[in-house]
Amino acid sequence: MGEMKTQARLMVKKFGGTSVGSVERIEAVAARVWEDIQQGQRPVVVASAMSGETNRLVRLAGEIDPFNRGMAYDMLLASGEQVSIALLAMALEKRGIRAVPLLAHQVGIQTDSVYSKARIQGVKSERLMRLVDEGVVPVVAGFQGVTLEDRITTLGRGGSDTTAVALAAALGSSACEIYTDVPAVFTADPRLVPKAKEVPFLSFEEMMEMASLGSKVLHFRCVELAVKFGVKIHVRSTFEKREGTWVVPEGERMEAPVVSSVTHDGQTVVFKLFPVPFGPGFLAELFEHLAEKGVVVDIITQSQNEEGQRLAFSVNEEDRPLVEKTLQTRLPEGSQVVVMDQMAKISTVGVGMRNHPGVAARFFKVLHELNIPLHLVTTSEIKISAVIDKENLPRAAQSLHRAFSLEED
Amino acid sequence: MGEMKTQARLMVKKFGGTSVGSVERIEAVAARVWEDIQQGQRPVVVASAMSGETNRLVRLAGEIDPFNRGMAYDMLLASGEQVSIALLAMALEKRGIRAVPLLAHQVGIQTDSVYSKARIQGVKSERLMRLVDEGVVPVVAGFQGVTLEDRITTLGRGGSDTTAVALAAALGSSACEIYTDVPAVFTADPRLVPKAKEVPFLSFEEMMEMASLGSKVLHFRCVELAVKFGVKIHVRSTFEKREGTWVVPEGERMEAPVVSSVTHDGQTVVFKLFPVPFGPGFLAELFEHLAEKGVVVDIITQSQNEEGQRLAFSVNEEDRPLVEKTLQTRLPEGSQVVVMDQMAKISTVGVGMRNHPGVAARFFKVLHELNIPLHLVTTSEIKISAVIDKENLPRAAQSLHRAFSLEED
Repeated sequence: MGEMKTQARLMVKKFGGTSVGSVERIEAVAARVWEDIQQGQRPVVVASAMSGETNRLVRLAGEIDPFNRGMAYDMLLASGEQVSIALLAMALEKRGIRAVPLLAHQVGIQTDSVYSKARIQGVKSERLMRLVDEGVVPVVAGFQGVTLEDRITTLGRGGSDTTAVALAAALGSSACEIYTDVPAVFTADPRLVPKAKEVPFLSFEEMMEMASLGSKVLHFRCVELAVKFGVKIHVRSTFEKREGTWVVPEGERMEAPVVSSVTHDGQTVVFKLFPVPFGPGFLAELFEHLAEKGVVVDIITQSQNEEGQRLAFSVNEEDRPLVEKTLQTRLPEGSQVVVMDQMAKISTVGVGMRNHPGVAARFFKVLHELNIPLHLVTTSEIKISAVIDKENLPRAAQSLHRAFSLEED
Repeated sequence: MGEMKTQARLMVKKFGGTSVGSVERIEAVAARVWEDIQQGQRPVVVASAMSGETNRLVRLAGEIDPFNRGMAYDMLLASGEQVSIALLAMALEKRGIRAVPLLAHQVGIQTDSVYSKARIQGVKSERLMRLVDEGVVPVVAGFQGVTLEDRITTLGRGGSDTTAVALAAALGSSACEIYTDVPAVFTADPRLVPKAKEVPFLSFEEMMEMASLGSKVLHFRCVELAVKFGVKIHVRSTFEKREGTWVVPEGERMEAPVVSSVTHDGQTVVFKLFPVPFGPGFLAELFEHLAEKGVVVDIITQSQNEEGQRLAFSVNEEDRPLVEKTLQTRLPEGSQVVVMDQMAKISTVGVGMRNHPGVAARFFKVLHELNIPLHLVTTSEIKISAVIDKENLPRAAQSLHRAFSLEED
């Protein structure tokens, strides 16, 4: 019974970069954790680097070698979380809470060896459990892992969310809290769509699509792990006490809207290649090389006419230099590359789309009526995406948000 | 024979904070290491945090809790070296040198658990040796260690020097290079004594005294380890190629001057207590409490007359808050404390003092002629120290420097 109680009250709480962005905010987080302990909770805290810190480190690295994404790069970036968990542990100790800051290798957050985009392969729970049982608050560095060869890795942007869910899974917890600077997940980015509303519930599937479509709320791999281990995620505000958005298995929501959100990614670059060799050989080789460099290729389209075969694909702006470098050596003779930047991807997501035909038609109609050209298009069972010019993004987002009734109560 | 060659050409090279203080300087260090490799050297690099970084981290910690010198504090401070070794490894890789950045726990630099002033107890050489044998340059984080319980510790200010000597000892190397922003050790601080000269050779013993007397050139513990393992230390400039100062066993120097240097510590605070209880009981208890808090008490004097017993001792300014906190609870009723700040300690050091009586007399005569009051005095076989008002420091240093013929060639 005592053990069950421990389990029941254990809660992994992840605080993002803005939540620990200054000494004052770190103190506020510590005060909040203190209150939760008074309420009987036994917290396991995960923290990101102080906001701005990771960017500062990336800039430093870029001054030396903008292409290095290896062992040294990951060690560099991992230092950001080390600073924030140490400061947070000090702020907890000051309040009389026994706290122990822990790096990935100290916990045993084991990953593969793909630097800068490593995947968690296992988490050792023994040390964490022992600390929690002793009444200590573990304060764990998010975003980082360690390989079997004792090398430090990082999990990619937003990786701290993944750390939190992986810890919750390892500790046998059925939920985890992701504290952030917004009060909940919204039907669209409020900066883009002023009428955007809070979403009380989202399905894992929708959240996964949103994450992969560029919504900054949760990391894709984090939701993937949550699905795998059945960990519900509560996205909520660090600065307010009310409930935010629960991300849960599909069956647990009363009623699913056709479209739950309009999501966008304002950092898209499109590469167009013409002509390219016929057949899948060239494509296989090209995308294999890009994958080896860690480039995530998003939408790929291929078409042909009598003039030859055309290839277009989109990537995140961040990966643009890596793609350009690869194309310098991999491009067939005579082939031309056009790089289209200032692009954005806009998407609508909703599990209800499965049972409601005509969503795609309405999506295209809205953009057509606004005279917005589509550069690339892709669809899945529960989402439709199009790459458009970035300047058209606000109009497109607002119109789609309205057209899919996301403004109504 | 091949193995001997490896040993012979292996060189631990430690670069201080100013040497890696910017991306440009890190590039310069990498270029220098590259040249040494072309000359056939097999370097093991140790780096401090970028200059200013440790102070920034200490400031952040101080905003949360100026008294915390525990586990979290050490984890915080250790992040500084993590950044510099990662950047330096990237700069080496960019030059086609295989480099692997290594934190203390990855090397196996084992220490005791006295946070913020930990002592190295052993260094595992296997991983380092394997890397060197594979033609890889290990880039090791200075200043940090790891306890048997896998906690991160730090070695105190200047601890990177100690790391370098400990690595050289573990690797069976007979020498190690300490690169710094000055070209050599000087007979006095040139900012204080413009006529100060470079010292080509110093004995271990003199360097130990100088380190413990506040000379910033080498860490005390570093020289202690160098003596223990017979590792000669070459203190030299990062920015110039010529030889600096060799710190060697006494016998290896041709001729020892009576006094080798005038050393000072401008960060001294004197506590005077009156009256204190008779007998050693109170003193034992007080200094035990200070030691537990990690305070290094420097000079202690005790005197008594018919009015009662007086106690005076000096500490580094840094430890002043810890001493004041201890005295708040440990001071006997009726006892008064006087804190004297703006103090400095000035010393003359030289193994030649052993065979030349009259050095102390000359030391006191010089200060007397300058009308400089002495607050505390202490002597050893090879040094004389006095605590004086900080405002008198330049005059005292210059006069002593002249009086002991350190200006002559």
